[in-house]
Amino acid sequence: MPAIRRRNPISDCPLTAALAAVGGKWKLIIIYWLADGRRHFAGLRQEMSSISAKVLTQQLNELLADDIVRRDETGPAPAPVYYALTDYGRSLLPLVETVRTWGRGHIERFEA
Amino acid sequence: MPAIRRRNPISDCPLTAALAAVGGKWKLIIIYWLADGRRHFAGLRQEMSSISAKVLTQQLNELLADDIVRRDETGPAPAPVYYALTDYGRSLLPLVETVRTWGRGHIERFEA
Repeated sequence: MPAIRRRNPISDCPLTAALAAVGGKWKLIIIYWLADGRRHFAGLRQEMSSISAKVLTQQLNELLADDIVRRDETGPAPAPVYYALTDYGRSLLPLVETVRTWGRGHIERFEA
Repeated sequence: MPAIRRRNPISDCPLTAALAAVGGKWKLIIIYWLADGRRHFAGLRQEMSSISAKVLTQQLNELLADDIVRRDETGPAPAPVYYALTDYGRSLLPLVETVRTWGRGHIERFEA
């Protein structure tokens, strides 16, 4: 199934453009779990226990449309389909790390 | 009006904790516009044309509750109230810059 190229709401504001592409509750977490290598759908859901299949499908489709993730089809159905970061998607890993570092400090601050 | 300390959904996952505190469509943009100094409510809304007063109030209250923003009251009503980044809020500015830099590249990539 080819990625549906959604109309990408590219704003001329860099922050708004970035948040449109990777904002929201799940996308950075999906990118985080794909950092070490490709995973199939069920493997991703295992790591993200509170995401529904419908929401994960929608988030993956948006990441596909923005060329951040790619689909690796390993053969005719029912062969598994894997999701992986594109090279462009890997450009987000420093951003993911920056957010994680701040988040770690935020947890420690509120536990102190 | 003292900031209502909302129960802060601090997850033990750094990414989830960070996204709970500064995720969503508006918070990083509010932090960006407060980086150069305090602003009153109307001044913030002027910079963020498509945000409603209700949503801006709610986002500011959450940022107040997480000690990212503070309220400067300049006198009894109707004296203006200003919003400013706390020192802790300023710890987010490198993250805002990282997201803006990626966003700028994302805009250029889709314009190319």
